Amino acid sequence: MVDFPTTAHAPETTRRNGIMHSGSRIVPEEVPIAFSYGGSSHAVMMATPADLEDFAVGFSLSEGIIAERAEISGIEVVAGEQGIDVQVSLVDDVADRLRARRRSMAGPVGCGLCGIESIEQAVRPVPDVSASPLALSHADIVRAVSILNEAQPLHRETRAVHGAAFYRPGKGLLAVREDVGRHNALDKLCGAVIGCGESGDDGAVVVTSRLSVEMVQKAAILGSPVLIAISAPTALAIRTADQAGMTLVALVRGDDFEIFTHPHRISPGNIADVA
Amino acid sequence: MVDFPTTAHAPETTRRNGIMHSGSRIVPEEVPIAFSYGGSSHAVMMATPADLEDFAVGFSLSEGIIAERAEISGIEVVAGEQGIDVQVSLVDDVADRLRARRRSMAGPVGCGLCGIESIEQAVRPVPDVSASPLALSHADIVRAVSILNEAQPLHRETRAVHGAAFYRPGKGLLAVREDVGRHNALDKLCGAVIGCGESGDDGAVVVTSRLSVEMVQKAAILGSPVLIAISAPTALAIRTADQAGMTLVALVRGDDFEIFTHPHRISPGNIADVA
Repeated sequence: MVDFPTTAHAPETTRRNGIMHSGSRIVPEEVPIAFSYGGSSHAVMMATPADLEDFAVGFSLSEGIIAERAEISGIEVVAGEQGIDVQVSLVDDVADRLRARRRSMAGPVGCGLCGIESIEQAVRPVPDVSASPLALSHADIVRAVSILNEAQPLHRETRAVHGAAFYRPGKGLLAVREDVGRHNALDKLCGAVIGCGESGDDGAVVVTSRLSVEMVQKAAILGSPVLIAISAPTALAIRTADQAGMTLVALVRGDDFEIFTHPHRISPGNIADVA
Repeated sequence: MVDFPTTAHAPETTRRNGIMHSGSRIVPEEVPIAFSYGGSSHAVMMATPADLEDFAVGFSLSEGIIAERAEISGIEVVAGEQGIDVQVSLVDDVADRLRARRRSMAGPVGCGLCGIESIEQAVRPVPDVSASPLALSHADIVRAVSILNEAQPLHRETRAVHGAAFYRPGKGLLAVREDVGRHNALDKLCGAVIGCGESGDDGAVVVTSRLSVEMVQKAAILGSPVLIAISAPTALAIRTADQAGMTLVALVRGDDFEIFTHPHRISPGNIADVA
């Protein structure tokens, strides 16, 4: 796979303590990335051009195009002048299913759906994750966020990207992915987890961002019953997690955090592990 | 216009200094909002259900559906069970133009475009804003961000939403808008500015978020030649601002900031005003 640059040096003029300096800053690249199936594009995302195979797998999963990694038969990354086309090949029956689905929905532009119908299509049912027996201690939560903070090379360089990780108690982080977009980082992570042939139901998803409803949907589609975020959730993210049987932990700062839904999965454990 | 709640009280369990407390936190609402034209929906955005008329005007502007406020003949807000449908009526020739455009593009799903074609459609040319004579002093930059920080009621309540403002030197902020999504906050602001019959070319757009390329595009469509952000820009945002003749100021922290493009519009002015 081709490697694309993920950062650039941007010349800038800094004002610091009242004095102007000429310098440069390392900033993250942002590239239009198209996902194509059967030669026809599905969406264009503005994203960090790294881990594109994971991104393709995770995007296909969260869009409901595939249910498992094996339904993708090939991924080809084609660089264009203005962006990157990620061409995903599906196994026959999955490709047939997508073609049928495409025939029945014309997309959001000029599709003839009224607003309320479009909203119903946008608000997809969220998988129930309540069956998972996953349990975490307070120390797990603090540790998961702390390890994620240490495991983000692109963020360390730029201080300007989001990270998403998959954490298993006793095993640490299975994968970490980064992107200028928080949804993309999570799609890449989901792709990395199912790409390893792993299941999402025995670990927690950890993200550095805020929690909108789409983040809850993506974690639920992966099957993870615990979603941990450094920042705050929206009301709809909380309601959706509640319905899905998902434990939402947010605002993790040092040893402090808040649990919004299904707290039964979180036990104090050995408090000394935290302190 | 109906008022929708923009926040909710979410019960939570907080761990603070090693001790668990039951409490509640004020979190921002997040609601699916459809924009419909001529009875057919154009897009569904997850957004804060406030300032929906501004949002409709700004979204119509940044999507290229309208060029000025007068091209909208009416806006009706219809609440559904799962979201809100914002029904925009256009004056006749603009409605005809949109219908023609819709016939020629079937949208991203199953549209038959290949990935590279979709990318070309996604990367729209950005208006040139270099003709504006707007000039700002260092004190203007610091003041604009500082006033914006004080003028965000929803953020003060939730600490979890983005703000966008329009600042004119010597006049302060013309408008401030907030949203759970930074793109939405900026669309609402653009709608508020042109909704007042004001032009964007004599003021700066100020945002609390990071700067992706779409933020630069929206500010340029408004006509503003200076974009100020509290956080960092992406490489593509910088390149796009450079091409558009737009001055990009970012990472404003207290009296410190960084200028990435077209610094000629920013002069030290009276440094004492800053300190």
